[in-house]
Amino acid sequence: MTDPNRYAAPILARACQKRLEQAGAAPQDAAQTVRALLHGSMLGTDSHGVRLIGYYADMLENGGVNRHPDRHFVRTAPATGRYDADFGLAHAASYDAMDHAVALARQSGIGAVTVHRSTHYGAGGAYALPAAEQGFVALVLSNSDPAVALAGGRGAFHGTNPIAMAAPVRGRRPWLLDMATSSIPFNRVKLFRSLGLTLDPDVALDEEGHPTRDAHRARVLQPLGGTAFGHKGAALAGVVTILSAILSGADPDPVMASTSDAQTGRARQNVGHIMLAIDPARFIGQEAFESEMDRYLALLHESPGTEAAHPPRAPGDIEWAHFDARSEHGIPVDPDTERFLGLSPRSE
Amino acid sequence: MTDPNRYAAPILARACQKRLEQAGAAPQDAAQTVRALLHGSMLGTDSHGVRLIGYYADMLENGGVNRHPDRHFVRTAPATGRYDADFGLAHAASYDAMDHAVALARQSGIGAVTVHRSTHYGAGGAYALPAAEQGFVALVLSNSDPAVALAGGRGAFHGTNPIAMAAPVRGRRPWLLDMATSSIPFNRVKLFRSLGLTLDPDVALDEEGHPTRDAHRARVLQPLGGTAFGHKGAALAGVVTILSAILSGADPDPVMASTSDAQTGRARQNVGHIMLAIDPARFIGQEAFESEMDRYLALLHESPGTEAAHPPRAPGDIEWAHFDARSEHGIPVDPDTERFLGLSPRSE
Repeated sequence: MTDPNRYAAPILARACQKRLEQAGAAPQDAAQTVRALLHGSMLGTDSHGVRLIGYYADMLENGGVNRHPDRHFVRTAPATGRYDADFGLAHAASYDAMDHAVALARQSGIGAVTVHRSTHYGAGGAYALPAAEQGFVALVLSNSDPAVALAGGRGAFHGTNPIAMAAPVRGRRPWLLDMATSSIPFNRVKLFRSLGLTLDPDVALDEEGHPTRDAHRARVLQPLGGTAFGHKGAALAGVVTILSAILSGADPDPVMASTSDAQTGRARQNVGHIMLAIDPARFIGQEAFESEMDRYLALLHESPGTEAAHPPRAPGDIEWAHFDARSEHGIPVDPDTERFLGLSPRSE
Repeated sequence: MTDPNRYAAPILARACQKRLEQAGAAPQDAAQTVRALLHGSMLGTDSHGVRLIGYYADMLENGGVNRHPDRHFVRTAPATGRYDADFGLAHAASYDAMDHAVALARQSGIGAVTVHRSTHYGAGGAYALPAAEQGFVALVLSNSDPAVALAGGRGAFHGTNPIAMAAPVRGRRPWLLDMATSSIPFNRVKLFRSLGLTLDPDVALDEEGHPTRDAHRARVLQPLGGTAFGHKGAALAGVVTILSAILSGADPDPVMASTSDAQTGRARQNVGHIMLAIDPARFIGQEAFESEMDRYLALLHESPGTEAAHPPRAPGDIEWAHFDARSEHGIPVDPDTERFLGLSPRSE
C-alpha cells in the first residue's frame, strides 16, 4: 500500500467546484459546499472531507438535492428564526443560517435558527467555527437517517446525530468539538470489513440485535455508551432529534428516507439542523470568557496522563494539528476520489 | 434486609422544611429546596432526593451555603441575563433563573440565563420540568467539583457535569432527560464497596489511572464512553463546563473546591449553571411540536427491542412510572435519612 497523493487545498477546491457545477449546482452554492468539504479535509476529518464529492454530485444529478433551491429565512422573534433550505445543498443554507444566528445574538445575546427541508451538511463544525472566529460560542446539531439502535433496541432508530460546538480562546484557535452520538460511524464498519479487522466491543449489533465485533455481521450501530450505558447515548441522540428536527419541522430520524435512496434519487430526505450562537459579552464578558477558556485549556493540557507520552487533549487539538500539517504538506486524497476529480500529482 | 419504610410526599416535605429552617435557611428558600428534593424522590432519583437533606443541612450550618443570600438577576440583552446566587441554596436560585429564562423566551423566542456564585442544585431536571409544563423546551446544565478523568487522564478533572432537558408532548407527561456525562456517579462506587459488588468495565480508574472493576480501588470516574470512547464523554463534560461555568463566571470544575470541603465549611464552591428555554411557537408551532413529539415517542415505543419483554424506553419513562408508584405507595426512605428527619412510620 503506497501513501495517497497529497494536494494543496486550492487545487482540490477548484476541482470540487468544477465537479459540483458540472452536476448542476449554482456556482455560489457549490463554493459553500467546497468550503465545508475543505474544512473537513484540512482538519483531518477525511470521512467528511473531499471524499464526499461523489456523493454530493450523485445527489445533485439524481434529484436527492435540489439544484435550484429557493432558500429563505424568516425571523420569528428578537432572538429566533426559521430557515427553509428547499432541499438545496445544505452547506450554503447552513453557513447562511449560522450568519443569521450570529446577527440575532449580536442584538439579543443569543440567537437560534432552525433549518428545515435541508439535506446532508457534512461536518457540523464547519458552521460552528466561523461563529467562534467572530467571538461567539456556537452550537450546531443535525439529525440524519436511521443508523443507530436505541438502548435495548434491535433496529436502526436514530441517526448518528452529531453535536458540534466551537468557542473562542484567547491566543489560541477555537475549542472545537464535532462528534456523533454513536461511538463510531457506519463508515468505520465498512472500512473494518474491507481491512478484515475486529470492531471494538459494544459499538455495533447484528441482525438479531445482539452485540457483535464481526464487521461483516454488523447491521446497526450502538449508541455511545454501548450495552451498559447506551441509554445515555440514545438520550443524546434524542436531544439532537428534538432540537434539530422536531423543533424545525424536518423529518424525525426514524421516518427519514435512507441516504442510499436519496443518493439514487428514489426519495428526498427532509433533514433538520439548529444553529445557536451565544455572545459571551452578554455574560461574563468577551475578554474574561476568552481568557478563562485559555486557563481551562492550560489546566487540561497540564493535567497528568496515564501515559506520560500522551497528555490529555481537548476537542480540536488533533484537528488543529492536522490543519497545520496539511497546510504544509497538502491533503492526502484516496485514489477513488482522485480519479473522480480527474486529478493526478502532475496536475499541480 | 427489610424494605425501607415509605412516606407520603407531604410528610417528607414538612420534615425537610423543618430541618432546613433549623439549619438557618429562610422559609421561602427552604421551600424551593424541598420542592427540588421531592422532584428527585417522586421520580425515583433517590440519589438526588430527600437523602440529600443532611448534606444541605451541613452546608447551611457550616457555611458552605450562605444562609442569607442577596440574590439578583440582571437582564443583559433581549434574550439573555445573569443571575448571581450569592452562594445561597441553589434550588431557589435555579427555579428563579429558569422563570427568567422562560419570560425571556416568551418575548424573544429563546432565553438564556447563566447562574454564578451558586452551589449544588441537586437534579437539573427539577428546573427543566416546570418550563416544559408551560410549553417550552428547556435545557439545564451545571458543572460540579472534579470527579471524572479526561480520556487518557489519571486524575479527576471535570465534574460529573449533568445535562438535563425537558420537552412538552401532546397528551403525555414531558420527555425528561437528566444524566451525568460520566457513566456512573461516585455514589455508585461507594454503594458497590459496601455491597461487595464488582463495577461495570470502563467506569472507574484506580490510583495509577488504570481501569479497575474493584470498587475499593476505584479513585476517579471515567467519562461516558470508557477507555475506547471516553474522549466523547469528556468532550460533553467540557460542553457543560464552558456553557455553565466559563460563560457565567463560576469556577471551572478543575479548580472548584471539593464537596467535602464545602460540606465541612473549609471552602466555598462557586458552581455555575445555565438555563435555556425555547418557545416552540416561534419555530414549527406549539401544537405541531407537541404532536410531533407524541409521534416520535409512539415510534420509539413501538420499535422492536432485543428482548420482547423489554421494549425500548424514552428518557423519563422510568421516572414517570416511579412517580405513579410513589404517588400511590409513598416514597421509600433509607434508615439514616429517616432518623435524621425524626420520622417513624407511626408519625404518619
